Amino acid sequence: MILVYDIGVERVNKVRGFLRQYLEWVQNSVFEGELTKSAFKRVTDELKEIIEPDLDTIIIYILRDEKFLDKKYIGEPKVKSSNII
Amino acid sequence: MILVYDIGVERVNKVRGFLRQYLEWVQNSVFEGELTKSAFKRVTDELKEIIEPDLDTIIIYILRDEKFLDKKYIGEPKVKSSNII
Repeated sequence: MILVYDIGVERVNKVRGFLRQYLEWVQNSVFEGELTKSAFKRVTDELKEIIEPDLDTIIIYILRDEKFLDKKYIGEPKVKSSNII
Repeated sequence: MILVYDIGVERVNKVRGFLRQYLEWVQNSVFEGELTKSAFKRVTDELKEIIEPDLDTIIIYILRDEKFLDKKYIGEPKVKSSNII
């Protein structure tokens, strides 16, 4: 899955810290990773608690299989992949 | 394709304005859309000109087929889809 968030500054650190427990941070406001169904539910339930739905938005793109996806960078990746669990 | 950018404030309006000619803006820093091969080349060539590669990053996820993708929102979508060409 690819998760992109647009979160108010007051909550962004909390969201980012929470997501780093489950996913890989690949860019400012973008996480990637694989989750089991139960972990996915845990993550989305918790995010619903943290965010202000009128102010914040999170889009989650769920891919059936990574092999259908190509990924290209323009500019240098800025986030080191050291936070994979 | 899904395009997510992390661009310095000095350049972000230029990048956003340029991308709106080709793709749909779905969230702060996220665009979606379909491009022909030649349009894709035009877009990526132009983005390389606009951005500062040491400071900015753009990730482009290219999907072979939309049917392999599911999309979920947490919080309300904030961008109206009025800018589709």
